[in-house]
Amino acid sequence: MDGEEFRQRGRQMVDLIVDYVNSFRDRPVVPNVQPGYLRPLIPPEAPQEGESFDKILADIEPVVLAGVTNWHHPNFHAYYPTASSYPAILGDMLSDAIACIGFSWIASPACTELETVMMDWLAKALGLPDHFLFSSGGRGGGVIQGTASEASLMVFLGARNDAIAKLQAAEPQGEPCELLARLVAYTSEEAHSSVERAAKLAFVRIRSLKTDEKHSLRGDALKQAIAEDRAKGLVPILCIATLGTTSSCAFDNVRELGQICNREGLWCHVDAAYAGSALLCPELRNFADGIELADSFNFNPHKWMLVTFDCSALFLRDASKIVEIFSADPIYLKHEFTGQPDYRHWQIPLGRRFRSLKIWFVMRCFGISGLQAYIRKHVSLAKEFEALILADGRFEVVEEVTLGLVCFRLKGTNEATEALYRTLREDQRIHLVASKFHSSGVYFLRFVVCSSQCESKDIRFAHSVIMEAANKLGK
Amino acid sequence: MDGEEFRQRGRQMVDLIVDYVNSFRDRPVVPNVQPGYLRPLIPPEAPQEGESFDKILADIEPVVLAGVTNWHHPNFHAYYPTASSYPAILGDMLSDAIACIGFSWIASPACTELETVMMDWLAKALGLPDHFLFSSGGRGGGVIQGTASEASLMVFLGARNDAIAKLQAAEPQGEPCELLARLVAYTSEEAHSSVERAAKLAFVRIRSLKTDEKHSLRGDALKQAIAEDRAKGLVPILCIATLGTTSSCAFDNVRELGQICNREGLWCHVDAAYAGSALLCPELRNFADGIELADSFNFNPHKWMLVTFDCSALFLRDASKIVEIFSADPIYLKHEFTGQPDYRHWQIPLGRRFRSLKIWFVMRCFGISGLQAYIRKHVSLAKEFEALILADGRFEVVEEVTLGLVCFRLKGTNEATEALYRTLREDQRIHLVASKFHSSGVYFLRFVVCSSQCESKDIRFAHSVIMEAANKLGK
Repeated sequence: MDGEEFRQRGRQMVDLIVDYVNSFRDRPVVPNVQPGYLRPLIPPEAPQEGESFDKILADIEPVVLAGVTNWHHPNFHAYYPTASSYPAILGDMLSDAIACIGFSWIASPACTELETVMMDWLAKALGLPDHFLFSSGGRGGGVIQGTASEASLMVFLGARNDAIAKLQAAEPQGEPCELLARLVAYTSEEAHSSVERAAKLAFVRIRSLKTDEKHSLRGDALKQAIAEDRAKGLVPILCIATLGTTSSCAFDNVRELGQICNREGLWCHVDAAYAGSALLCPELRNFADGIELADSFNFNPHKWMLVTFDCSALFLRDASKIVEIFSADPIYLKHEFTGQPDYRHWQIPLGRRFRSLKIWFVMRCFGISGLQAYIRKHVSLAKEFEALILADGRFEVVEEVTLGLVCFRLKGTNEATEALYRTLREDQRIHLVASKFHSSGVYFLRFVVCSSQCESKDIRFAHSVIMEAANKLGK
Repeated sequence: MDGEEFRQRGRQMVDLIVDYVNSFRDRPVVPNVQPGYLRPLIPPEAPQEGESFDKILADIEPVVLAGVTNWHHPNFHAYYPTASSYPAILGDMLSDAIACIGFSWIASPACTELETVMMDWLAKALGLPDHFLFSSGGRGGGVIQGTASEASLMVFLGARNDAIAKLQAAEPQGEPCELLARLVAYTSEEAHSSVERAAKLAFVRIRSLKTDEKHSLRGDALKQAIAEDRAKGLVPILCIATLGTTSSCAFDNVRELGQICNREGLWCHVDAAYAGSALLCPELRNFADGIELADSFNFNPHKWMLVTFDCSALFLRDASKIVEIFSADPIYLKHEFTGQPDYRHWQIPLGRRFRSLKIWFVMRCFGISGLQAYIRKHVSLAKEFEALILADGRFEVVEEVTLGLVCFRLKGTNEATEALYRTLREDQRIHLVASKFHSSGVYFLRFVVCSSQCESKDIRFAHSVIMEAANKLGK
């Protein structure tokens, strides 16, 4: 395919994209396919000779679109949102065309430098503390990671290696693995599974601490755990606080946890993968009280800030703690320029795409006002859903509705809500998932405002489908 | 930006892409910018109100394109190639439009299923052993990782946890960190820095073994290392063999290493990040002799197979060893479908893009024949460069030219070649990097055929620039 053909095929793809995005209301939210549907639809091996792009275009609907879960469908209310917007797609198109591998400054100066400025734009837009800004001139700054899972893993690795280096300085005879065995990290029992996973990968012991009645990890629980572990000879190194848990959008008390971490010498990381975008709105910043105490902070513009996946923003107070883990510096990657970060030392992969372009395009096209309006609309739609649910005495809402998630259930035992969930899954007109509190075992359904196309009528529709299902069950 | 505006902006971006790709010969390969050039060119914070896309388009040339290193420029001969092609860009556009997060089958059936078939297509096209195919019905299969660094890390984590589980079965009282302290992995002293990095991250001891005179890790070196380490009470778990080292495109002896690994119970991983794509050509498969002995294999279609970054293909003989590391399975990610992989257990991130689309588009548009022709052309251009270099008695080629890399130097001490490198860097008409053999300390320049636009005239041009530089130095 030469450039002239690409001009034509690119236009066809642009039109296909718009037609697809406009078609959600005519499509099911979850596809009507069974596992294994795709393999028989295409040949078992690649063609020997190249095919016309027309043949590929003809396969997109039956092979691909017929089998995708439509995350941007107005009736998609599962997990948390994933972002998508036209400006972000345009940014990715440009990134793909440049197709540089920006692992160091010289490997593509614009790729590194636009990222440093965009991370500062994000930090300022969210009202994050100055120590996370490159422009503050300290050791801090931000970096785009693929996902919050990777951000958590980076933090675990940084905290682990920093702690071992300190222990080795005090005990030069200490075997690294013996020192590793003493380390312990903390998080809330409601934290995302990726936190536990990151601990496993980093081979660091982690304790999931009990939360209060609002599913918030509080200072007292951390303080007690640190004391218990110190008494056993362990070395507490890290606390990962969550702002907006995946299960119920609960908020750990960052002020209390941060104070203890600062005092006790623990790294305080704040995972705000979903909720972080809400900090764009000053009236929603209460939940992040104490954020200036954090050593690192992560949120996903690819969740709720209209930047298409993947784009997870990790901010560090002292980036040198991460950079030092990755000291491998072979001659073929060396260069003579300094003064800008070599982002290969800030992440697990070596290569990296030019992802700051899509942040730049999105922030400029929408402006801060446009992004704020987007967040506020979703919060308002969630409140609308909450009011509808609470108007029916059979239902209860089990977590305060702060942002775009409503956690609700049929009053009484879990069985009724489990049956409701099965009915909704069979019905298939809306898509949501269930969860359960670790502490109480209470089972509930999660209704999230996800799509940029979601309107009041979709909220009322989802509510009516849920009522119908409850009525069917005779509840 | 609504759909109708995107139809217009998308067309503008498609045209901008083609114009950019057509403009390389009018651009420098490395940009004429100094560190810090970008920040003054754009505002210090995001705009409050949204801006017209026209303003963004106007900034692309001065802010972005003026500061990128043009990896697809015909005079780019550094590192290894990174792929780019129009069909791959079209695949990514569709992926961005669908914007699903395919972490499980239900999260988007097409995303999971197309990937399983594409991994089989790749394995068959490269002539990999059946145990890496899903269609063989065993425990094997492939997965798209972001980079070879992540693939290596996955392998380290899998081998580490598998070994610890086995040790714990034999010694139930063993503390995990004590068992960890006994593990040891092996690689060649010429392996990529990401292998050493992966070992550090996984907290597994690694030994870089000496290579033979062709910079190839041989069976005897591994055998001796295993014996030494067993005598010390260590537990050898993994050998990472490289096919096509980054430094000089040397090839470890997979048959010898694989036989020892199989016999001694070590995981044998083969990292063919760059060279793997050459296996598309049957006449180039000699270097992979013994590949049927490997437990895992990785190559990067995003390097030399025209699939735009990121797309690193990892194949496993027994995927369960990786999957079991990631057993965290919270209720909100559970679903009732089985029989297809839940790729979230095959990688470090939870979320994932629909990257198999670009493999599908590329393999269909080019066909196996087109991809083979691409590889063969690059190999032939490298041979052409080698012949030109060898025609001048001042130069020597220090590694056999098998694929697209030519390692050359001025005869004599390193200083002369170091001076030549500095001269070429100042000249800036071509871009290449230097390297050094670990064993001998011999310093050399790496000339890689990278760009899909690279032609014989570009090889002759690069050669003339190098001769000019050598003459200038009075060599």
